[in-house]
Amino acid sequence: MTQTPASCPLCTPSSEQVLWSDAQFRVVGVNDDQHPGFVRLISQAHVAEVSDLSASAQTRMFALLVGIESAMRQMLSPDKVNLASLGNQVPHVHWHIIPRWKDDLFFPDPIWSTPKRSPAETFALAGHTDRMARAEAFWKEIPGICKALS
Amino acid sequence: MTQTPASCPLCTPSSEQVLWSDAQFRVVGVNDDQHPGFVRLISQAHVAEVSDLSASAQTRMFALLVGIESAMRQMLSPDKVNLASLGNQVPHVHWHIIPRWKDDLFFPDPIWSTPKRSPAETFALAGHTDRMARAEAFWKEIPGICKALS
Repeated sequence: MTQTPASCPLCTPSSEQVLWSDAQFRVVGVNDDQHPGFVRLISQAHVAEVSDLSASAQTRMFALLVGIESAMRQMLSPDKVNLASLGNQVPHVHWHIIPRWKDDLFFPDPIWSTPKRSPAETFALAGHTDRMARAEAFWKEIPGICKALS
Repeated sequence: MTQTPASCPLCTPSSEQVLWSDAQFRVVGVNDDQHPGFVRLISQAHVAEVSDLSASAQTRMFALLVGIESAMRQMLSPDKVNLASLGNQVPHVHWHIIPRWKDDLFFPDPIWSTPKRSPAETFALAGHTDRMARAEAFWKEIPGICKALS
């Protein structure tokens, strides 16, 4: 279960903005102008499904997931947070932790759906610069947030 | 946090196939021919985000989530399981627990994306009838699975 196949892009990432990591998990920042502050929580072990992780690893993972969600809400005030563990393309446990705003490209649908408006409409929003700044501050707090949860 | 607004379709559902429920959570079957066995785990309390739930409710919820995922894998043998808590349309905590197959309409993309093939291609598959039968058996086991986790 802990093999690290060379073909897995989460075992051998070509480029990642790692915000925090330890032996079991890491958190990376996702550059997505529509969803500033988007992060992924990634298992260091190469397992496909959450239920492949040990009970203790699951407990830690969910504590990190909820702790990051909570901090994201406090620091970014998104309209909603989306949590998803899909892994169809990369069967290696990773969670998408996505701040959603009512004026983002896809709201109220998932970010994998057809856009509801044009990027220009979203980028022109007065609040966008503020969101980007708060997202940057949130990412800087990730190491402290994760250490406090570990 | 436990208010039950009349406008919330998860507080006052018009039709649901409830497979199991208790005071904190319920599991409903989702009729989706592309993803037989699809279920939703729903909080009985009207809260928008996972981090709004008490720590003890979170612990129970994640135990149910992983337990259902594990049973789904054993009974349906899907190619992948997708877990998602979105709630953009209905901000009341509910998890989509979705069995995915490489020949389903959307694989390897999320089920909210653009279809990759036609329903006819999927429905013609030799294994589809078997999947439907196993999904029906899985749903029948949900009460026992959830009781054992409670």
